[in-house]
Amino acid sequence: MSVTAPQGFVAAGVAAGLKSTGAPDVAVVVNQGPSQVAAAVFTGNRCKANPVLWSEEAIKGGRAAAVAINSGGANCYTGAEGFATTHRTAELVADRLGVGAVDVQICSTGLIGLLNDRDALLGGVGAALDDLSGDGGNAAATAIMTTDTVAKQATARAEDVGAAGWTIGGMAKGAGMLAPALATMLVVVTTDADLDAATADAALRAATARTFDRLDSDGCQSTNDTVLLMASGASGVTPDPESFTDALTTVCHDLAMQLLADAEGADHEIAITVVGAATEDDALEVGRAVARSNLFKCAIFGKDPNWGRILASVGTTRAAFDPADLDVALNDVWVCRSSGPGESPDTIDLEARAVSVTIDLKSGDRSGTIWTNDLTQAYVHENSAYSS
Amino acid sequence: MSVTAPQGFVAAGVAAGLKSTGAPDVAVVVNQGPSQVAAAVFTGNRCKANPVLWSEEAIKGGRAAAVAINSGGANCYTGAEGFATTHRTAELVADRLGVGAVDVQICSTGLIGLLNDRDALLGGVGAALDDLSGDGGNAAATAIMTTDTVAKQATARAEDVGAAGWTIGGMAKGAGMLAPALATMLVVVTTDADLDAATADAALRAATARTFDRLDSDGCQSTNDTVLLMASGASGVTPDPESFTDALTTVCHDLAMQLLADAEGADHEIAITVVGAATEDDALEVGRAVARSNLFKCAIFGKDPNWGRILASVGTTRAAFDPADLDVALNDVWVCRSSGPGESPDTIDLEARAVSVTIDLKSGDRSGTIWTNDLTQAYVHENSAYSS
Repeated sequence: MSVTAPQGFVAAGVAAGLKSTGAPDVAVVVNQGPSQVAAAVFTGNRCKANPVLWSEEAIKGGRAAAVAINSGGANCYTGAEGFATTHRTAELVADRLGVGAVDVQICSTGLIGLLNDRDALLGGVGAALDDLSGDGGNAAATAIMTTDTVAKQATARAEDVGAAGWTIGGMAKGAGMLAPALATMLVVVTTDADLDAATADAALRAATARTFDRLDSDGCQSTNDTVLLMASGASGVTPDPESFTDALTTVCHDLAMQLLADAEGADHEIAITVVGAATEDDALEVGRAVARSNLFKCAIFGKDPNWGRILASVGTTRAAFDPADLDVALNDVWVCRSSGPGESPDTIDLEARAVSVTIDLKSGDRSGTIWTNDLTQAYVHENSAYSS
Repeated sequence: MSVTAPQGFVAAGVAAGLKSTGAPDVAVVVNQGPSQVAAAVFTGNRCKANPVLWSEEAIKGGRAAAVAINSGGANCYTGAEGFATTHRTAELVADRLGVGAVDVQICSTGLIGLLNDRDALLGGVGAALDDLSGDGGNAAATAIMTTDTVAKQATARAEDVGAAGWTIGGMAKGAGMLAPALATMLVVVTTDADLDAATADAALRAATARTFDRLDSDGCQSTNDTVLLMASGASGVTPDPESFTDALTTVCHDLAMQLLADAEGADHEIAITVVGAATEDDALEVGRAVARSNLFKCAIFGKDPNWGRILASVGTTRAAFDPADLDVALNDVWVCRSSGPGESPDTIDLEARAVSVTIDLKSGDRSGTIWTNDLTQAYVHENSAYSS
């Protein structure tokens, strides 16, 4: 059900012919209200795609009646013609819904540097608008896939966090993070909670900062990443902001782990937890440095408990630590103590997909986790044999 | 001839049994004077190997009578025992040469986290000291190889830069850079020019900053990287500092390009030149960002002229530019103009190993080049199937 699980939302996914395979490639999600509050976070990349340039401006009013997404082309680095395509798409949806174009968010993903077929795209959006339904969540989640092998959906209920009356639903595509991304990450989260724009924005920023922002599959930052939250207020319940943020974080975390597990060509999901840090920023900086080490990522692919490559990555950061007194565990075996050999790595089994790395900086009581994937020959194949 | 090309140097390379293959694994280069001036630059990694911890302190006097190098183990993250091995090695060389231990530089490369066999190492160093000769440059260059497929050597003469009377020789192993490195990079450069310590240090820092520091094969920073310059003064000629720096830069550039061409598993050597930058730092930041994009590097491996991945990397930097007005050329074909499609990429042939990327930021008149390799399945194989 995903985005149509909360009351007040309808959705559809259709094949517009943008993908040569004929697979579904256009999705629309509409917020039927009574409220149309929205918030969004976008890629930190300065070279943004046209839909991001549009949506960043449009979201400033804190409202969105709908989002239209195509997975047949990123509409990135396509100049004024590409921006006009985005604008025309927003106008089409707005006309049909009787709202302003600025109330329509646009997302795109796919190959960059190529213009979308505007007529096909607009035709698909029109067809999706004709097909909207309260059961359309699955179809929408399927239509936004690119190299994804499975559709990604998640829901949470108020009862999960000790509250009552509202629901959150979400869908995602891609594999990556808001900052670095393997492939463009698009996420739409809906709720029937009654939120004001400031609460929605704060909750979304808090949730993404602890979930999607800590996913770093391959260190590359997409031009199109978008996470959109739309709130209908249809439940009639105004949630406690803290409870809502908790539930939203749960949905975002669930979707983030689905993205991680489906990352292109990956054999392992790796959680890098840094403890004993002086600050949370230090913990995250160290985690990201390890997550971006191709040598470390190759070692995990090779099931090699090579803790030296982990220490070498820690040493590239500015975090507070004593280089002679670092501890490192792989799957909870402390193979490195005080920056030298510790327990024998011989008992470590790296066959399972889930791998944990723990790094103790012994410089404080803060911690943080970054999630990444290994670097495999399949990753190189997928990203060398096919454009994106 | 490499390090024994200048007057005043003898060298040797022997098999000490540290490598299971029985290949040569210990090299010694001795400066017979009359002068024993030296300068060195080391890895920027904060988690340094024991030989670097030793050599960084020892070089502070601006002198070195010899360097002993082993390629059978990095002696990194091996604690007090490992440091004692480094110290004992320096003492052995010093005793044999009648100098102080601080006049001996030590370098190591190979697997990290494992202790060297101290007796085998000291035995090898002793044998190398017995075998020193004015023809030993080739043997030394061969004995420092690890995953290198060829020994790397270079020379320059004063006449190359319009001066007279002195010579520079050098050898290198590894494939990487002083900051990020694919594998540990060790470089020894010798000269018979008569230099004071300050001139040697300034010349070495200037030369490495424009050569090895701009080589970024895989974004990983080694724990052992060292570039050592030793000057014997045996020519009796005190060079003009500028001419000497030029010739030294030529030798370092030559060795850097040899390292690039022999990088583990690489199919392409890629020169990323950023022009129109407001500052040289901006140019280098942009070049490094592109050089570290796994997606871009996979595309080059796949012979795919995917300029979108280049722009996406440029967008992650803080350099001065207008995101809507960037030009990009691949092998001199301007495939991207004003951040949109430019000339057709169809004519671009990426079969040859040498690839050029040019990025015009249109924000000034400064420029800079970063060299990198593509990301291949062979790289993943070499770094997953074997520890290092």
